[in-house]
Amino acid sequence: MPALSPEELYLFDTTGFLLIRGAFTPAEVTEARAELTRLSPADSGFANTERFQDLPGASGLFARLALDPRLVGPVREVVNQPLRVLEGYGLRRGPDSVLYLHGGNSELLDLDGGRTVGRDMSITHTYHDGKLYCPYVKTLLYLSDITTPEDGSFCYIQGSHKANFPLLRPRAERGARASLIDEGFPTLSDVFVRAGDLLLLNEALMHGTRRKRTPGDRLLVAYGYGPTFLTDWRELDGETGDLRGAGYVDHDVEEDFVS
Amino acid sequence: MPALSPEELYLFDTTGFLLIRGAFTPAEVTEARAELTRLSPADSGFANTERFQDLPGASGLFARLALDPRLVGPVREVVNQPLRVLEGYGLRRGPDSVLYLHGGNSELLDLDGGRTVGRDMSITHTYHDGKLYCPYVKTLLYLSDITTPEDGSFCYIQGSHKANFPLLRPRAERGARASLIDEGFPTLSDVFVRAGDLLLLNEALMHGTRRKRTPGDRLLVAYGYGPTFLTDWRELDGETGDLRGAGYVDHDVEEDFVS
Amino acid sequence: MPALSPEELYLFDTTGFLLIRGAFTPAEVTEARAELTRLSPADSGFANTERFQDLPGASGLFARLALDPRLVGPVREVVNQPLRVLEGYGLRRGPDSVLYLHGGNSELLDLDGGRTVGRDMSITHTYHDGKLYCPYVKTLLYLSDITTPEDGSFCYIQGSHKANFPLLRPRAERGARASLIDEGFPTLSDVFVRAGDLLLLNEALMHGTRRKRTPGDRLLVAYGYGPTFLTDWRELDGETGDLRGAGYVDHDVEEDFVS
Amino acid sequence: MPALSPEELYLFDTTGFLLIRGAFTPAEVTEARAELTRLSPADSGFANTERFQDLPGASGLFARLALDPRLVGPVREVVNQPLRVLEGYGLRRGPDSVLYLHGGNSELLDLDGGRTVGRDMSITHTYHDGKLYCPYVKTLLYLSDITTPEDGSFCYIQGSHKANFPLLRPRAERGARASLIDEGFPTLSDVFVRAGDLLLLNEALMHGTRRKRTPGDRLLVAYGYGPTFLTDWRELDGETGDLRGAGYVDHDVEEDFVS
Repeated sequence: MPALSPEELYLFDTTGFLLIRGAFTPAEVTEARAELTRLSPADSGFANTERFQDLPGASGLFARLALDPRLVGPVREVVNQPLRVLEGYGLRRGPDSVLYLHGGNSELLDLDGGRTVGRDMSITHTYHDGKLYCPYVKTLLYLSDITTPEDGSFCYIQGSHKANFPLLRPRAERGARASLIDEGFPTLSDVFVRAGDLLLLNEALMHGTRRKRTPGDRLLVAYGYGPTFLTDWRELDGETGDLRGAGYVDHDVEEDFVS
Repeated sequence: MPALSPEELYLFDTTGFLLIRGAFTPAEVTEARAELTRLSPADSGFANTERFQDLPGASGLFARLALDPRLVGPVREVVNQPLRVLEGYGLRRGPDSVLYLHGGNSELLDLDGGRTVGRDMSITHTYHDGKLYCPYVKTLLYLSDITTPEDGSFCYIQGSHKANFPLLRPRAERGARASLIDEGFPTLSDVFVRAGDLLLLNEALMHGTRRKRTPGDRLLVAYGYGPTFLTDWRELDGETGDLRGAGYVDHDVEEDFVS
Repeated sequence: MPALSPEELYLFDTTGFLLIRGAFTPAEVTEARAELTRLSPADSGFANTERFQDLPGASGLFARLALDPRLVGPVREVVNQPLRVLEGYGLRRGPDSVLYLHGGNSELLDLDGGRTVGRDMSITHTYHDGKLYCPYVKTLLYLSDITTPEDGSFCYIQGSHKANFPLLRPRAERGARASLIDEGFPTLSDVFVRAGDLLLLNEALMHGTRRKRTPGDRLLVAYGYGPTFLTDWRELDGETGDLRGAGYVDHDVEEDFVS
Repeated sequence: MPALSPEELYLFDTTGFLLIRGAFTPAEVTEARAELTRLSPADSGFANTERFQDLPGASGLFARLALDPRLVGPVREVVNQPLRVLEGYGLRRGPDSVLYLHGGNSELLDLDGGRTVGRDMSITHTYHDGKLYCPYVKTLLYLSDITTPEDGSFCYIQGSHKANFPLLRPRAERGARASLIDEGFPTLSDVFVRAGDLLLLNEALMHGTRRKRTPGDRLLVAYGYGPTFLTDWRELDGETGDLRGAGYVDHDVEEDFVS
């Protein structure tokens, strides 16, 4: 039996994500929270944000979770390639943390030599004969309730996973320096969740989170999946001189433009 | 100045390959042949075919060649992503060797669990705003003259790099067991080359070589290039149990069906 | 100067429509309402709905309106082909009227001979080199305020203009017989307008209107535009025996399934 | 039973045309030639070329031929929309006649107001779920043998029906003023036929005919087919002032550039 119903697949295709409510039980949420407490977070580089690196390597529980059918089942339906886990991490965020918008199907990427391109092939998805082919898909397992924008809710630009035009750099070139997270955009929308909910995400969707204003933590565990020919997630500033460096080079993200 | 003229780019786009005649001098060809002679070939697994593995690792000359602007310049014009070298190898073939057809934009790939898909995302290319995005591109530097089909010429199915339908498995299901290399196909075409010629190849093109019947060797050096987020080329039979295995899983190739 | 800003074009591309607020003045709205009063409506075939046919032929005012730059300017930016007016009509709706969902990028269409296809080429749009190509675009000029669902608001399924899967027939085959207008759908959304607002619509968007429950009329004037090689809008049940019949054959719409 | 085998469909998809040899008998060829002799040709506007207009209207034989399953069967497999006949004509060409290249998936089209676009939607085709959607397809029934280029053979640019780049205008801008028919192009190819052969053609293919040098006539009957919402074929110079003019506006063709 397919892991996604026809209407769930329709929703994922048309919106770029799918919220699966109550995928994990309260007991499982408690267990995952406790396991994270045993691990040592790294500095994420973002304000008031701790990042737990390489969860599958750091914890047997999280290694098993990466293979849990509740995650891998839906992922298979939208990747449709021989599969591998590209990354697994946890994020604990406190008040005043924020995650600016990133992703988007046609945002610009600078190549060596000054050329600019409107495709990042690591997220360029397609469709053929009844199947989606999304090369980078994440599952976000929420371990906190996030029920208002002030809780730092997941937000996204509608339809940006299939956008034909770039949004961020042209906006910056017209002088905009604020994040759409704060400034708003006609199609910026929020997703509110409860602990135990699972968000299946096409990384081509332009998304981020609202600025968290409430006390308490905002905790989640995330896994990235893709075809077996993709390398583990690792940030790469650009090509290396010997053309042997492997990793992911960012296309435009709001961080580059927001002051 | 772009490495490819508008008409060269048109030809690569519409046919899936581009032959650049006389890219390397006779002296360079002689030097490359001599360098290969110093290296130890491995058994390729194909009849009368020696394979020289990991050329960039095995030889300074071939490490530099991987970065030669005559290779990398054209490659950049058709990959248009931050770039890396995915593989570099040599092939020396003798009489009676053959390379059956492989590639093709819509050939079938078996997934774990019995599902079949018509896309191999490692070769799925697209176009956007004046630029091609080919994730797997090869440069073949010929070190022998190959001027007749009997010399084991490169051959390909016209337009197969953009085919919407699969060819091989449906053909096998109708009972065909011979290679199109031998049996022919209305759009199977040959490319004849001289030593020093360079072939720029979109791996989505269905291609192979004719059965070599003439004496002497057929020698070439090949490099594969792709975006930085692709892993080094390595054959993978399928997913590993921990979903951490990395590599390339074959879609249908003629070898699977030919007896 | 382009008729649409980059962000308006981004919104139209990603959502399938664009609301241009206050495009027409109250005086122009009054004039258009008065002009419709002078014309004789036809029975629309829908409950409590009058349809004013062939507005450009029936009225000099509406013939000029079809060419008004406030309509044609935005339309040109999203059709990008030599242009023609395909239809122009008015709709006056009273209480209990409704317009079920229709459109959608991949809904099914029955061909003669029993074949089914997932494309209606009259609405199949594409993008190339910075420009959209939407073959059927409508402008809806509202002559009434519609500020609640009970006023019979325009509603649509998010992202349906680029959907890869069909929604309606599979739903009916699973037994659904109610309209999503009444039953709801996670991504069914409303657009509220004031008289004088203009809605630019990609006909590939699945859209309809809510069931009107409030008193008063709901009046609008609509024009359809497309490339010059499209025929005037006219419903065609199917092919004619001589293959000379011209017109538009419906793909699946909710009316076919709702009881 | 489908009118095209899987391999015929593969060939049509990958090359943009399909030659069906011996589709009509010598007796049928003789009958069609005789029927044309009874009709009055018009001046085609091309040298040594007579054009027989509106064959379905002018002759019962040719009205029936437009509906012949040997034509309509294959056409249905590649249009996949409710169908109509868009045109039917005969062409008799004598020595020194020529038909320069036209068609091509991405050639440029001038819009009113000075904008240029790279799509002519009347020939923009797509694929979805196992089916091709070609909006303009022709069947050419040959009534003469054309076995050498000097007979004025049909010729085409390989892969041009799916080209992402334009060829003709950039070439003209670089100073080229000769036809590729005469000057050659690496992928310009010929199709040789016998009377009774049928050519199924995707109008997005860039095609023309060689310069006829041999004596005798070169006679064929052609029908154009497309979806029911397309208007009869008629040349339109551009939009009409009232935006009601219907017809087909040319994108770049070689005639515009060749001197």
